[in-house]
Formats: sequence, C-alpha cells, structure tokens
Amino acid sequence: LNNKAFQDYYPEGYAHCFGCGFLNDRGLKIKSNWEGEESVCYYRAPEYYTGGFPNNVYGGFLASLIDCHSAATAAAASHRDQGYALGDIPLPRFVTASLKVDYIKPTPIDCIIELRSQVVEIKGRKVTIATVLSAEGEVRAKGYAIMVSLAKET
Amino acid sequence: LNNKAFQDYYPEGYAHCFGCGFLNDRGLKIKSNWEGEESVCYYRAPEYYTGGFPNNVYGGFLASLIDCHSAATAAAASHRDQGYALGDIPLPRFVTASLKVDYIKPTPIDCIIELRSQVVEIKGRKVTIATVLSAEGEVRAKGYAIMVSLAKET
Repeated sequence: LNNKAFQDYYPEGYAHCFGCGFLNDRGLKIKSNWEGEESVCYYRAPEYYTGGFPNNVYGGFLASLIDCHSAATAAAASHRDQGYALGDIPLPRFVTASLKVDYIKPTPIDCIIELRSQVVEIKGRKVTIATVLSAEGEVRAKGYAIMVSLAKET
Repeated sequence: LNNKAFQDYYPEGYAHCFGCGFLNDRGLKIKSNWEGEESVCYYRAPEYYTGGFPNNVYGGFLASLIDCHSAATAAAASHRDQGYALGDIPLPRFVTASLKVDYIKPTPIDCIIELRSQVVEIKGRKVTIATVLSAEGEVRAKGYAIMVSLAKET
C-alpha cells in the first residue's frame, strides 16, 4: 500500500510552493490522493486564517487550497493518462492558468476541510479540474481551475 | 490629508481577516486607497510565499491579495455611492460571492506587487470589481470579483 501523496512526487525544483511544496518549511504542505476517480485532500486551517468574522475561514485560504489541490490533481491525472503509475517518474509540473471560486456559505474555522475534485477534461497540456469544498458535511465553496503543464507535449 | 486605508475603517467585528484585518496579528494587513477612480494596493510578498518555482510568487497568495483588495474596494465604493466620505461611519461588510483569477505570467518574489481595481458595477448589495495585478511594470494576473454586502439594503 502506497501512502504517499501526489505532492510527494513533485520534482524538487517544483517543491517550493507555499501551498503544497515539501521543501517549503513555512508552507501548508497539503496532501492529495486518489479516491476512486476523485482526488481528495483534507486540511484543518490554522486558527489565524480567519476571514472577516473570527469564526470563519479566510476565503483567500480556501482559494489557495483549491488552487494547489487542483494543480496536484491535474498533474496526477495527466501522468495517469499517459500510462504511468505514481512513482514511475516524477509528476509533470502544472501551473494555474485560471482559477474560479464560488463561495456558497461560510466555512467554520475549527473543522476539517474536505476538497474533492474531478477531472473535467485533459486536452494536451491543459487539464481542467472541478472541486467541491465541504466542511461538516455541507458544501462551502466550488472551484473550477484550468491548469497547464510546463512540460512539452509528448 | 487622510492617510488611512479602507481597511482601517472596517468595524472591529470584521477586522479579523487574515488578508486585511487590523486585528489579525499574523495576517497580511494589506491596505487599499483611492487613486482617482481606481483603488490601489501595494504589497511585497514575504519570501516564503513562493510558488512551485522558488523565484515566483505563489498563485494562491495573489488570489488572496485580489480577494481582499476587491472586498475593500467594494466596501469603499458602496459607501461612497451612498454619499458618505471615508470616516463618516464604519465601512459596510462585504464578503466574496465569486472570485476569478486569470494568471497571465509569473510574478517575481522580490518586488512590489501593485493591484489596481475598477468598480464594474454597484447593484444593490452586489458590487463587481475588476483588478489588474502588476509587478515590475508588467501585468501578471487579472481578477474579477463579485462581492456582496452583509448589510441590508438601505
């Protein structure tokens, strides 16, 4: 059984991201994994990532989680689509072309945030990811990200 | 001459935001001001807010800046639209309904980031803000945010 996350397979040159890089000591180090056809990520926000109201999570933080989880999912999906298993070779490097977040209702600060993403489309270097962010069993935000691989098409 | 920023006029109950609240000791404390019909914000990212590549700023951080600057601009614009001057009464409280960020090119980590926003529309409790984020004289990202006031229409 493999307990490593997508982010653990990033090449070292791509591992400095504040949201997900294993080489960023100050970063969030979020971890994403497949769960069937969906990718999932769980994260508890540090208590200082409050929004305008003290008991809610900062929207920019939720956008950050969606961004990094989408990038990781795009990388893993593209990699899998090319016939590789995780760990065969480092994951490709994806950057965000466009990120849209719709905020449905406030996210409480003191709970586990769940991100659950689906691959909408893989088209050459472009991978589109749709994400539902939930907490305490309710949908709090939805994300839609267009990610682009920096690697050449092979 | 008034050197206070929009965020300095938030009511205390709305001042805990990680991005812009004056009561969040760990937060970014971004500051926004009018410059003619545009609102502006300048910010230098801490060195650990790197993206996948060590020399670029994390996209989630840029989304956070756009989010908070848009919220502040929406509040100031709505307030002004109702005939108030800054400081007359606390600013209304706006939250993000939807945030879209298009990433045009990487943002270098060691420079001043400039956000410049225009009010696209004020319609009841809903204010739409368009933002251009630049660094070193080049556009790096564009934001489009729909912000909603929590106050009742008056």
